[in-house]
Amino acid sequence: MRAVDIIVRKRDGAELTAEQIEFFIEGYAKGAIPDYQAAAWAMAIYFQGMSDAEATALTLAMLHSGQQLDLRDLFPPGSVIVDKHSTGGVGDKTTLALAPLVASLGLPVGKLSGRGLGFSGGTIDKLESIAGFSVDIASEQFMRQLREIGVVLGSQTAELAPADGKLYALRDVTGTVPVLPLIASSIMSKKLASGADAIVLDVKVGQGAFIHDLEEASHLAQLMVGIGRNAGRRMAAVISSMDQPLGRTVGNALELKEAIDALHGHGPEDFTQLVVTLAGEMLRLGGRPGTREELQALAKVQLLNGQAWNKFHQLIAAQGGDVAMIDDPSLLPAAPIVEPALAPGSGWVAELRADQVGLVTVALGGGRQRKDDLIDHAVGVVLEAKIGDAVEAGQPLCWIHAPDEKRLAEARRRLLLSAYCISESPPAPPVLIHKIVE
Amino acid sequence: MRAVDIIVRKRDGAELTAEQIEFFIEGYAKGAIPDYQAAAWAMAIYFQGMSDAEATALTLAMLHSGQQLDLRDLFPPGSVIVDKHSTGGVGDKTTLALAPLVASLGLPVGKLSGRGLGFSGGTIDKLESIAGFSVDIASEQFMRQLREIGVVLGSQTAELAPADGKLYALRDVTGTVPVLPLIASSIMSKKLASGADAIVLDVKVGQGAFIHDLEEASHLAQLMVGIGRNAGRRMAAVISSMDQPLGRTVGNALELKEAIDALHGHGPEDFTQLVVTLAGEMLRLGGRPGTREELQALAKVQLLNGQAWNKFHQLIAAQGGDVAMIDDPSLLPAAPIVEPALAPGSGWVAELRADQVGLVTVALGGGRQRKDDLIDHAVGVVLEAKIGDAVEAGQPLCWIHAPDEKRLAEARRRLLLSAYCISESPPAPPVLIHKIVE
Repeated sequence: MRAVDIIVRKRDGAELTAEQIEFFIEGYAKGAIPDYQAAAWAMAIYFQGMSDAEATALTLAMLHSGQQLDLRDLFPPGSVIVDKHSTGGVGDKTTLALAPLVASLGLPVGKLSGRGLGFSGGTIDKLESIAGFSVDIASEQFMRQLREIGVVLGSQTAELAPADGKLYALRDVTGTVPVLPLIASSIMSKKLASGADAIVLDVKVGQGAFIHDLEEASHLAQLMVGIGRNAGRRMAAVISSMDQPLGRTVGNALELKEAIDALHGHGPEDFTQLVVTLAGEMLRLGGRPGTREELQALAKVQLLNGQAWNKFHQLIAAQGGDVAMIDDPSLLPAAPIVEPALAPGSGWVAELRADQVGLVTVALGGGRQRKDDLIDHAVGVVLEAKIGDAVEAGQPLCWIHAPDEKRLAEARRRLLLSAYCISESPPAPPVLIHKIVE
Repeated sequence: MRAVDIIVRKRDGAELTAEQIEFFIEGYAKGAIPDYQAAAWAMAIYFQGMSDAEATALTLAMLHSGQQLDLRDLFPPGSVIVDKHSTGGVGDKTTLALAPLVASLGLPVGKLSGRGLGFSGGTIDKLESIAGFSVDIASEQFMRQLREIGVVLGSQTAELAPADGKLYALRDVTGTVPVLPLIASSIMSKKLASGADAIVLDVKVGQGAFIHDLEEASHLAQLMVGIGRNAGRRMAAVISSMDQPLGRTVGNALELKEAIDALHGHGPEDFTQLVVTLAGEMLRLGGRPGTREELQALAKVQLLNGQAWNKFHQLIAAQGGDVAMIDDPSLLPAAPIVEPALAPGSGWVAELRADQVGLVTVALGGGRQRKDDLIDHAVGVVLEAKIGDAVEAGQPLCWIHAPDEKRLAEARRRLLLSAYCISESPPAPPVLIHKIVE
């Protein structure tokens, strides 16, 4: 078997065998197959696509390139460990509330999360708003904590699916990022390596997500659900809107506060709805009895009765976080300047572009342009008005948490110019949950 | 300008500007753009193609990556220096007779040729059957010899179009060889660098060529003619058949002998026809008066009156070759074993696959599997029967010039099994010259 023959087969539209894909990825991970052959192969996949069987084989090959967490011995036989993955968006603090909520209902949640890049935020960055909180968790600690308190939120390590890390970096510089089977296998190889039995995917679609089209999002969701199921996992995917930011906050400490609100039962409606929907799916895959509606109602109660909050408290303490800061969020990092952007006219909010709010937050210092940028946890935007809200001229549309006057002015200009769009008639009510793919 | 943006533009089907192509090739030649980006780009071109303007820009960018021979000052103003290029085939010893023939009619022919690879032979290897003949010619000698005797046959150097050499090696291992605009610009960049004013292309089509389809050959011919014309050259392309080998010999010294026969006016009919056709085009582009038929007749006479032979003699002497070996070809390298392959039945030769005869010659030691293989100039195959010939069982179909009994047996087996096909009725007469593209 030669790498060039595998490239040619794919170029000519043939379906690759699992052996060919395993040979290619194993060789690439080891350095026996050079970057230039992987680049040509990825571009051929851009044009010729991959069957579900090929995407599954690719996922498994990347999975096999590194370590896998084995969580089976931690819990009694029949236990189901659930995980959740979001394809990324703006204001997406879902994991912060969802993981302790589901864990508080007795389903173990062991999750490895990423950092933010570009206009998308990352769970890890938000958690690091809390002094002392550690996300660099060795696998022994990961397993001990998961067994003891049923929830752990760690940072993705290079030991899981290293071939994916290498291929992902290559795709970034060779024009082969937007390729559904490569996206799906990249996500799924890391998820499978994390050892969960059941995985709920939150596939974001809209201007603040990397997929703008509902049909494409459905394809990606179906592909990932298929891959996971082929690998013996229980799978579901929720397709949710990322046209406007989720909730009312964008920025690390601001989003953490909002998640704390939700864990106390008074989070914003859209955010709470998404958390409850995802929790319902996790409980369902985890084998809890009841209809989808009953499981969602169960999750909602858990936000109101304080048990999800208690689990969050345990989680923060277990990973070294200063619990005083979550008990009293005014102790979290705060920006020196908090000023509004005022509505320039009266009407209804017709658009609130998530990507623009994300970019404003990056420009304020709250996100990264490049992987090694430092971030400011305090800054961000609090949205007073969202799509469908009636506003009057001079009323605050949002509050900007800025590090200095210059960046305040730039953020205000951009929010009014590019993020908010005020119309004279009310828009169609926004849809949050497009569908659930099982 | 970033390399990845140029890859993405091509991937998405946009036409690249000359500046973008120049940036990419210049960066690639210098090493600023890595192999993996060039590989992804080449694969995107496989799928999206290139316009004639893009292929021209690519050719010029590769041309500009290295030296160019400047032959303008060698001859009086108005002189036309002609060159010829074949896309490669089996038994294609055309240059050996054509170059001295055209030069003997007063048109300077300065040509850089390649070595054989795979089943295709190379002019340089054939010339090196002659003891002492040197093809490594510095550019001063190239120019001096061209001025003094009007003909020179050198070996391609890395100084001409080095970006092409680099890209060609990359394409070989990334599944991006069969891409017409890349093939066309690879050939044309080297041809333009050689400094000729007029170029006649011999585009081979058939089982012994890398293009099997007449329509594709026509596209390639038109593309190269267009590129050359855009670069200010006079251009023509002859599309000729490579279904069966050209002439009756395959193998280096054997082909040289056949070329010598042709230069004495008694070469095989098909070979002589191709030489005369190409010579006619070279004379036409060189500005000689007369119709195509008159110019071909002029060339034919030159093979009969000894002047083409005299020029060949001068050429061999000028480049250090032992002229005794061409005056008496029995002095050329000869194989220890010469045995026939006998017709297994009576009928007509319906097929004589050029690629198979080429592969047999490689297996006998007369060609290369890899670039650094040594070759045996003596071995090869002399074809007694060609397509359309009637044969009787037990009659020699061909003579195998072998180095040992084992390889003789293997060559015989393969020639009878895979190269020759005998049918019970006569096949349609083979076409040698499909068309001429101007």
